[in-house]
Parts: sequence; C-alpha cells; structure tokens
Amino acid sequence: MSFPRQIQDLIDAFLRLPGIGPKTAERLAFYLLHVPSSEIVKFSEAISNLHEGLVLCDECKNISSGDKCEICTDTSRDKSVICVVESPLDVYSLEKADGFRGVYHVLHGLINPLANIGPDEIYIESLINRVGDNKDKINEIIIALNPTMEGEATTLFIKNKLKAVNGDLKITRLGVGLPIGGDMQYADATTLSRALEGRRSFE
Amino acid sequence: MSFPRQIQDLIDAFLRLPGIGPKTAERLAFYLLHVPSSEIVKFSEAISNLHEGLVLCDECKNISSGDKCEICTDTSRDKSVICVVESPLDVYSLEKADGFRGVYHVLHGLINPLANIGPDEIYIESLINRVGDNKDKINEIIIALNPTMEGEATTLFIKNKLKAVNGDLKITRLGVGLPIGGDMQYADATTLSRALEGRRSFE
Repeated sequence: MSFPRQIQDLIDAFLRLPGIGPKTAERLAFYLLHVPSSEIVKFSEAISNLHEGLVLCDECKNISSGDKCEICTDTSRDKSVICVVESPLDVYSLEKADGFRGVYHVLHGLINPLANIGPDEIYIESLINRVGDNKDKINEIIIALNPTMEGEATTLFIKNKLKAVNGDLKITRLGVGLPIGGDMQYADATTLSRALEGRRSFE
Repeated sequence: MSFPRQIQDLIDAFLRLPGIGPKTAERLAFYLLHVPSSEIVKFSEAISNLHEGLVLCDECKNISSGDKCEICTDTSRDKSVICVVESPLDVYSLEKADGFRGVYHVLHGLINPLANIGPDEIYIESLINRVGDNKDKINEIIIALNPTMEGEATTLFIKNKLKAVNGDLKITRLGVGLPIGGDMQYADATTLSRALEGRRSFE
C-alpha cells in the first residue's frame, strides 16, 4: 500500500533536505496533515518567498537585501580585518559570539574534489582580488573554516594564494582545542595534540 | 544582527515542526538558500497541495482520496477484525509489516488531559457506533496503541466502552516485550517484567 500522491510528494521534498531520513520525512508530512490550512499556506509561502529580494553582497558575498550587506555598509566595522567563512550561517554564528568587529568574506562552500567542487566553484578569486585591490588597507586575514579535511585543504589553498599576492600579510586561523565544557577523556587524540600545541601561558 | 525577514520567516516555519530545534531550523533554511528556484517552487507546492483532495474515510477515518479508503473498499479484507490505531502513519506501518488482513480505525490522537485532549476530541465515538451497528459481524477488536501513558489510558477507556456495547466481544492488544535485535541488558524493568508476563510456550 503506497501513500497518497500528495503525501508522497511532500515526503520526497523533505527527503531532499540535509539530515532528514525516510522516517522523519514521513512524520513531518503526516504532522502537517493535521495542521490548519492557514498555517500550511504560511509555510508554503515562507519557502516560495525565500529567494525573493535576497542577493549576495558585492563586497563580501554574504546574503544581503541590497548591493552591499549590513556589515559592509557599517562604518563602525574595522575593514582592515577580514574573516573568511564557509557559509552565511557562520557569519551569524560569529556575530552572536560577539568580539569580532572586522568584516567577512563568505566562500559559499569548501574545496571538495570528491563532490566536484574546485577552487573556481567557490568565492576564492573574489577574496584574492579584494585583498589585492586593498593591499595597504588590509592588516589581517582570519581563515575561520571548520577543522575538517575540506576545511584544512581550503585553508591551505587560500593561505598560499594570499601569500603570493602579499608576502607580508598577517594570516591567522581559529584556535583549535577543547571546547568549553568539554571533557578531556572524550576528546580525540588529534584534538588533544593540537590543544597541547596551541597551549598558552598565563599573562 | 538578525536574519533577513525571508530567512527568519522560514526558520519560524520549520521550528513549528515536531523534532526540529533552532539549530536544525537555521541549517535547513540556509540550505534552501542554495537550492535552485525550480526545486524551491516544487517544495512550496508540495506543501500547499497537501490538503487538496484528501478527506477522511467515512468508515475508518483513515486519510483517503474518496468517501471510502482503499482498505475499506477492498473486498478481500476481513471486515470482522478492526485494528484501532492512533494515526494514519500507523496504518502504513502495519501494512508494511504484512500479516494483517483486517480493517482499521484511526483515532487521530490519544486521550491526553495535559494537552486538553479528551475522548470527544478523537474518533472514539465513531468506533463505538461502528461496533454497535455491526454487532454480529465483528469478531475482534485489536487495540494497537503505543505503550505510553496516553496510549495505555486510551486503550483502557476504549476497552471499557466496547465491553459496555458488547460484553462478548473479543478485545486484544499488541504483544509487549523485547524488540527483535534488542538487548536484555538495555531493556527497562517494566518492559522486562511485561515480557516475562507475556512469555509463550514452544508449540
């Protein structure tokens, strides 16, 4: 016995989302069956309106409702420090964390040969151009990519490209170590050895 | 810094779904940003079309595209055995399991005083009427509700109501015990004692 077409279509749509398996997709679709039509219309509109009026910022490639995003037009931000991140969501995470007053550059992906994503598929060239065009004004580039295989490969690639543009540029990356509230007994060997490497003296 | 309105609307919509927390809702919304518009339209339509053409079966209250559902109109099904379930998804689960050739009755919920759901909010009365109207034709009612607090309460309530209609009616419930592939060491005490109670001899 198969699901009615309308339900199967919705299950298929949910299945295309990341982290949603067959059981969850079924549960979500059947949950929506009991939701009033007004809510259904709202949900459907929220999805169809998503792309409307959103573009990428000319400067940093973050999502924006105008040519330049909120952060790039903010005169109080320090334009001499650029933080390179993988996705727009990372920008919001860092903004929530507080403490960073520079600007961003969003790559929209990581180099991943297995998924056919090379350096040209993400916004690396625009970062290099941005740094090249503002040689005297940029003091530091923080490469803030996830400490995964793809993140490490992309970090090294960008570091080498930037060094070629400006050998004196200060290039940094995020600290690696135990997360706050973490437990040494459950940390993996690589994290622990990197935490030791990155140890800091009390000052 | 807050999300653009379009993204926040979609995050809010996802948050209303069961089992989806703030982080997942953000990830899903930002994932959809990168999805081509044609896919977005498909997803939006799948949601808005969901309620279209779907009604509840007159007989068993399962979702159906006509007055009577696929199962109730199937002449090969044994109409003398009714299996009572909580939701339409349970019907599909049992159909997948194979082995049941009777018909169903879908309650669309469980009695749950904490959530203000009483016996009148779910399809109990229509079950009682269905049994009362077909006294001679119904041999067995299988109450197949989840072994939770709400499921147990609803099971007892229905059992008593059915006994009042027809004292001779055979009323059964699903077996309780270890799931296949389960581990006795991880089973809770109630499950184990119920598995002992429900032990069966080799025949």
